Amino acid sequence: MTKKADIGMLGLAVMGRSLALNINDHGYLPAVYSIDPAEVDRFMEAEGRARNITGTKELADFVAALKRPRRIWMMIRAGSPVDEMIEKLVPLLDKGDIIIDGGNSNYHDTIRRVALLESKGLRFVGTGVSGGEEGARHGPALMPGGSSAAWPHLESVFSDIAAKLKDGTPCSDWVGQSGAGHYVKMVHNGIEYSDMQMIAEAYAMMKHLLGMSPADMQPVFKAWNEGELNSYLIEITADIMGHVDEETGQPLVEMILDTAGQKGTGKWTSQSALDVGAPAPTIAEAVFARFMSAVKEERVAAAQVLSGPDITFSGDKAAMVEDIRQALFASKICSYAQGFQLLRYAAGEYNWNLNYGAIAGIWRGGCIIRAGFLYNIKEAFDENADLPNLLLHPFFKEAVERSQAAWRRVVAAAVTRGVPAPSMSSALAYFDSYRSDRLPANVLQAQRDYFGAHTYERIDQPRGRFFHTNWTGHGGNVSATTYTA
Amino acid sequence: MTKKADIGMLGLAVMGRSLALNINDHGYLPAVYSIDPAEVDRFMEAEGRARNITGTKELADFVAALKRPRRIWMMIRAGSPVDEMIEKLVPLLDKGDIIIDGGNSNYHDTIRRVALLESKGLRFVGTGVSGGEEGARHGPALMPGGSSAAWPHLESVFSDIAAKLKDGTPCSDWVGQSGAGHYVKMVHNGIEYSDMQMIAEAYAMMKHLLGMSPADMQPVFKAWNEGELNSYLIEITADIMGHVDEETGQPLVEMILDTAGQKGTGKWTSQSALDVGAPAPTIAEAVFARFMSAVKEERVAAAQVLSGPDITFSGDKAAMVEDIRQALFASKICSYAQGFQLLRYAAGEYNWNLNYGAIAGIWRGGCIIRAGFLYNIKEAFDENADLPNLLLHPFFKEAVERSQAAWRRVVAAAVTRGVPAPSMSSALAYFDSYRSDRLPANVLQAQRDYFGAHTYERIDQPRGRFFHTNWTGHGGNVSATTYTA
Repeated sequence: MTKKADIGMLGLAVMGRSLALNINDHGYLPAVYSIDPAEVDRFMEAEGRARNITGTKELADFVAALKRPRRIWMMIRAGSPVDEMIEKLVPLLDKGDIIIDGGNSNYHDTIRRVALLESKGLRFVGTGVSGGEEGARHGPALMPGGSSAAWPHLESVFSDIAAKLKDGTPCSDWVGQSGAGHYVKMVHNGIEYSDMQMIAEAYAMMKHLLGMSPADMQPVFKAWNEGELNSYLIEITADIMGHVDEETGQPLVEMILDTAGQKGTGKWTSQSALDVGAPAPTIAEAVFARFMSAVKEERVAAAQVLSGPDITFSGDKAAMVEDIRQALFASKICSYAQGFQLLRYAAGEYNWNLNYGAIAGIWRGGCIIRAGFLYNIKEAFDENADLPNLLLHPFFKEAVERSQAAWRRVVAAAVTRGVPAPSMSSALAYFDSYRSDRLPANVLQAQRDYFGAHTYERIDQPRGRFFHTNWTGHGGNVSATTYTA
Repeated sequence: MTKKADIGMLGLAVMGRSLALNINDHGYLPAVYSIDPAEVDRFMEAEGRARNITGTKELADFVAALKRPRRIWMMIRAGSPVDEMIEKLVPLLDKGDIIIDGGNSNYHDTIRRVALLESKGLRFVGTGVSGGEEGARHGPALMPGGSSAAWPHLESVFSDIAAKLKDGTPCSDWVGQSGAGHYVKMVHNGIEYSDMQMIAEAYAMMKHLLGMSPADMQPVFKAWNEGELNSYLIEITADIMGHVDEETGQPLVEMILDTAGQKGTGKWTSQSALDVGAPAPTIAEAVFARFMSAVKEERVAAAQVLSGPDITFSGDKAAMVEDIRQALFASKICSYAQGFQLLRYAAGEYNWNLNYGAIAGIWRGGCIIRAGFLYNIKEAFDENADLPNLLLHPFFKEAVERSQAAWRRVVAAAVTRGVPAPSMSSALAYFDSYRSDRLPANVLQAQRDYFGAHTYERIDQPRGRFFHTNWTGHGGNVSATTYTA
């Protein structure tokens, strides 16, 4: 009788294949399955060859090949395929068996699936997997959440296959119950959208304001990566700027069409922020910027019609490059502040117990947004798990206050010269709003009371007392006491 | 035997009462009903007294009191109460009868309800009703959509009760099939959010940069209302600035707490923009600004911790007031451009045939966003129903180009001096993005291809051909031909 497999990998597209190999590298015996038997053959004849991996072509054989409690890791397309596969798996499973969904599933689906599977005596874990093909193969960041009873059965293998920090700490930790794992991964991706957009804005300013070429920018990004901006995305941007197109001899980045696609997680992050009432404008601006990039033909036509200001920058170029660096760092801090604020609001909304320090810890390696300053974020939340906003921690307060003069010069230069910088502008407005003890929302409240009798609170009265004014001297008569809006 | 009623009003809260009286004023005989019999008594003894109105306390009596095809207008709380009432009404109705939902229902619900009622041989209309209590009583803007077979039975009464322009044109028109009416009302509200936020930002700049009091601003807003900014919201803002608090003798607006509530339609507009891929950042920023206003205690604490720049403005104050006016107008144009762009995308997504000129026409009177420049918007879409963006029409192109120097000065001043202007900044970034034939999304595409093999298109190759580069010289080998992403 064949030895039972330790864990099952269901789905053999690039992510599933890479994770199966990663798991096998760490001494586990995986069984693999795909709904496409040819995919199983291809894998077993290529990367899976001469490895201790069990290939199966029938779902029943796949399930039967696994030790109990069974651990079945699905890497298949998010959405209905996951529900369909769960439906097929459930009759084959025994109490206590564990299904893991490692796709980019919507957290609403994961909330539903955890409840469904637990009602059947099974366990369900939705896990974020970040780092792309390379990460999956050699060490992803893992953000598991769902049935907490499953975690003791998963912790070792997750820790073994995850990316490791220099001191050996794995980039994997239990995130929380229900849909928390996929939610955290979604916010990771939202932050990734805005990190990428702000780097693109920095590039646009160096290009348009300062006339720099990608070759000029390559050493700039390389140097930035040595300092407080140290991160995977800055590192690869340096590589990208240095890459010459073989066809034309031009910098490759300049030959690439400026239309960015999106796969939904940035959109979900923004929509969830709107649902839970968390201000996450910088992430939303990054998503809208992708939409704007998509209408290339319309923009080309509009550029013929609409004129802008003179773009020439006449100041000190080297000083402006340093200003842009500082603006990028300060904006990035605000974007992460928004991401963690969103996690806090969502934890309240969904009654999750999230460990923000642990989440920042996971993100330090393996994933796309890995960055030096995530060590500082982890420290901040480890010191004070209830920190309402990153900006209030001394490290980030000092960093933003030190950078703000440069940040304001950069955004003002972009605004004056017509270089769009939606995410950096939005980050600055977020900072200025957050540090405002008085925002002009009193005007909004007056307007709402004027046209809709929505009532308002007063600065000289306790909260929770609502007043209405008959602004026009005619119309409805509404007394304060009838409102508890 | 009593004469049958022309139309039924279901729900006698302030909006239902006002609409019933408005309908009656125009010679129709309404029957009214509320689930709360005491509310029927109160109405019939007060406003409804000595009028030709039939009060009913049983749903069956209410339905029986109506001429056929019955026209039942619900003004009840959006959400499940609407579904519950539909369920009770359906068994009492006959083929061809019409249910109208005048609440702020979510368009997804309206899409579902139209299909459900039509499948039963009934007709369902979801209509936007704007203008608050005053509008409902004396002339609202109406945005009906749904079962088109219902419209011939509604057009007269809708036209009669709607707000009228000076030339007598009613602010009511058929918007489109399915959920189009509620969708258009939702976008109206999204635009309203950003109109209000931008006025609040103008106020904040006059207050903080220029040291102006509400009394100083009152004539400014009054003068603005005489020019291209002419609109209901500017008009009431002038009134608001002039209103003195009876308690304290202070300007009332300064006594109002700066925490704005929201009821969902601005949020829905932003979420729908994210769903259909339409850039609507200025509207989203206005919603996020309300969220930011809500955390008053957190902001008060943050203001003690986080320092900003010197706020003092040393330039020509009168010139800056005029700059702010121009900035507000240009920002407002971009906000409406986004709203109409969103309608166009939604029409494509949901297969609605929307008449943008008619929609702008409705909004010219009765509703909260009524404004002089909606005449220009109507003209623009009447001239060219397929206009991709308002900014491309000569009137708006000229207006924005003429204002842009002032607009840039204002946003730069806000950015430099730390006065948050998220919606105006966002509107400017939208304008600068839209008129960019080249955005920096090429950098995003390079990054996505680098870490995720997402592939990219090239500027020197036809659209639809996807390329992948092995940026690192190691890792996955992906050929262009295997991708059709």
